[in-house]
Amino acid sequence: MAAVDVANEFETITRLLAPLAHPEWGRGLTDDVALIPQRKGHDLVVTKDALVEGVHFLPNDPLDTVAQKLLRVNLSDLAAKGAEPFGYLLACHWSERCGWPERNAFVEGLARDQAEFGVALLGGDTVSTPGPASFSITLMGWAAKGRIIARAGAHPGDLVFVTGTVGDGWLGLRAARELLTLEPERLSALVEHYRRPMPRTAFAPAVLEHASAALDVSDGLIADLGHLARASAVRLDLQLESLPLSLAAQAWFDGRADADQALSQLASGGDDYEIAFTARPGHEAALRREAERLHLRLTRIGEVKAGEGVHARYLGEPVPIEQAGWVHR
Amino acid sequence: MAAVDVANEFETITRLLAPLAHPEWGRGLTDDVALIPQRKGHDLVVTKDALVEGVHFLPNDPLDTVAQKLLRVNLSDLAAKGAEPFGYLLACHWSERCGWPERNAFVEGLARDQAEFGVALLGGDTVSTPGPASFSITLMGWAAKGRIIARAGAHPGDLVFVTGTVGDGWLGLRAARELLTLEPERLSALVEHYRRPMPRTAFAPAVLEHASAALDVSDGLIADLGHLARASAVRLDLQLESLPLSLAAQAWFDGRADADQALSQLASGGDDYEIAFTARPGHEAALRREAERLHLRLTRIGEVKAGEGVHARYLGEPVPIEQAGWVHR
Repeated sequence: MAAVDVANEFETITRLLAPLAHPEWGRGLTDDVALIPQRKGHDLVVTKDALVEGVHFLPNDPLDTVAQKLLRVNLSDLAAKGAEPFGYLLACHWSERCGWPERNAFVEGLARDQAEFGVALLGGDTVSTPGPASFSITLMGWAAKGRIIARAGAHPGDLVFVTGTVGDGWLGLRAARELLTLEPERLSALVEHYRRPMPRTAFAPAVLEHASAALDVSDGLIADLGHLARASAVRLDLQLESLPLSLAAQAWFDGRADADQALSQLASGGDDYEIAFTARPGHEAALRREAERLHLRLTRIGEVKAGEGVHARYLGEPVPIEQAGWVHR
Repeated sequence: MAAVDVANEFETITRLLAPLAHPEWGRGLTDDVALIPQRKGHDLVVTKDALVEGVHFLPNDPLDTVAQKLLRVNLSDLAAKGAEPFGYLLACHWSERCGWPERNAFVEGLARDQAEFGVALLGGDTVSTPGPASFSITLMGWAAKGRIIARAGAHPGDLVFVTGTVGDGWLGLRAARELLTLEPERLSALVEHYRRPMPRTAFAPAVLEHASAALDVSDGLIADLGHLARASAVRLDLQLESLPLSLAAQAWFDGRADADQALSQLASGGDDYEIAFTARPGHEAALRREAERLHLRLTRIGEVKAGEGVHARYLGEPVPIEQAGWVHR
């Protein structure tokens, strides 16, 4: 078997990870298990996502941002269900380049996001791998009993919304790989979005209160809305001219000759980690008030119809769309 | 980023993994999250362990046994706490060698063990990696409220027990790497033990009922008892002549010139996945009855004293022991 410094893994737990542990349920990370008491009137909601170096993050991405992205892609899953996160289990498969400075940076990223999103470490495993680094998190949260928002639930007549902006994850990956030509501050905003997406945890209660169906945008807006349409057995009509673009994405878009193709790319790229959802028209005003209170951009991008599939138009004309997205790479 | 066949990951979920899903809580593996209702009078117990190719399993280990080992090392953690498992989340980081036959084999291994141990798949993630394959499982179970068995809890006067046999995991790894000379059926028994350890799930209720402290033997008996001694602030005295050996381990032992060293190696090797625990002497008879009912070998290997550390003797003489074990490789 590979020669690894076993002491490192012990010390990683006691020196770096133990300070992140939930004071009670994490049992000091010394007892192989976490113990979580029941919460009356609630269901437990659990999700698990993994990131692999060279697939989901770049070898030169700083490890504090890798840790934050790992936590945030999981937080995004829970937010889209209207659930409230409380803790997570972590598996670190450290590569040979992960010495103390890198492990320290990773843990600092986690510590920052624990404070920001109100979660704590419950347990997990730390191992070495002779290959590229990879990490996974199992995130847990609470939802009021029987009340999470599913992918199924959209009805004809509902409206389609998305939080934040669309396409920055895809552009950010291209920026990080130095494949884009834009002003430096635009490029760095995109790279930041790619490395450290913002899960819409704060908006989860509004989703729970008002959405008929929801999911987070990880595979690409079009692909994910395709999942929602299929699960709900409805058709979604999108107006691409409504797509919310960041300043950087707008600058990139303005430089494209083919607007249809450019919008289709932005709506098909992955890694946005926004919430796409449907809601009855009567809920729009309340959703807008809540978004405004949170200083969160909220955009109506289409309608739910009877039928199937996702259909996009740009200024009234049908746009052929790439439905695949970035799926479980 | 690495070029991977994204369709494979979708198909892996719908074709291979969905049939393993918990009929209700897994939500058909289509909704990003699992939803687990409360169970009255119980706490949720959670553990997460990872296996990496070339570190925790060998590149030529069949993938059905890798899947079973992955599930079993987690089942072993819960069994040692006296908890009852019900489901798990799975992250597969498939390497390039993991085509359909390998993925099929992996899932067949899981299916067999789901039936044997009464657990179901709740969710997770499936991704590709350009490096060696790795896998992690987050296993969940129930324990009667406030009642799991910790590492702390051993008191002077308690007895020290271990289930099954000791050293077969370490010998099995050596056998799998063709470093041992023994009769073929002994070698294959050891390899089988290394690849497919037997978690003592059936004995968990007895642990819960009778143990004062417990943990599973994954890092090596001596190292793990060291954790227990430290957590309980006690000293453990072991009699190495009592160590329960399998027929294969006995055959290997009989060929060693230095009995002290050989026993120390067996007691320091990892991957046993037995339960080591302490109990008041008054509980010994009930423990033996329960073990007999389950056709499970149960051996008293020492006593708890005031003091600290793990101290071993062989036929009355102190034996210097290697305390490190195989720790979080």
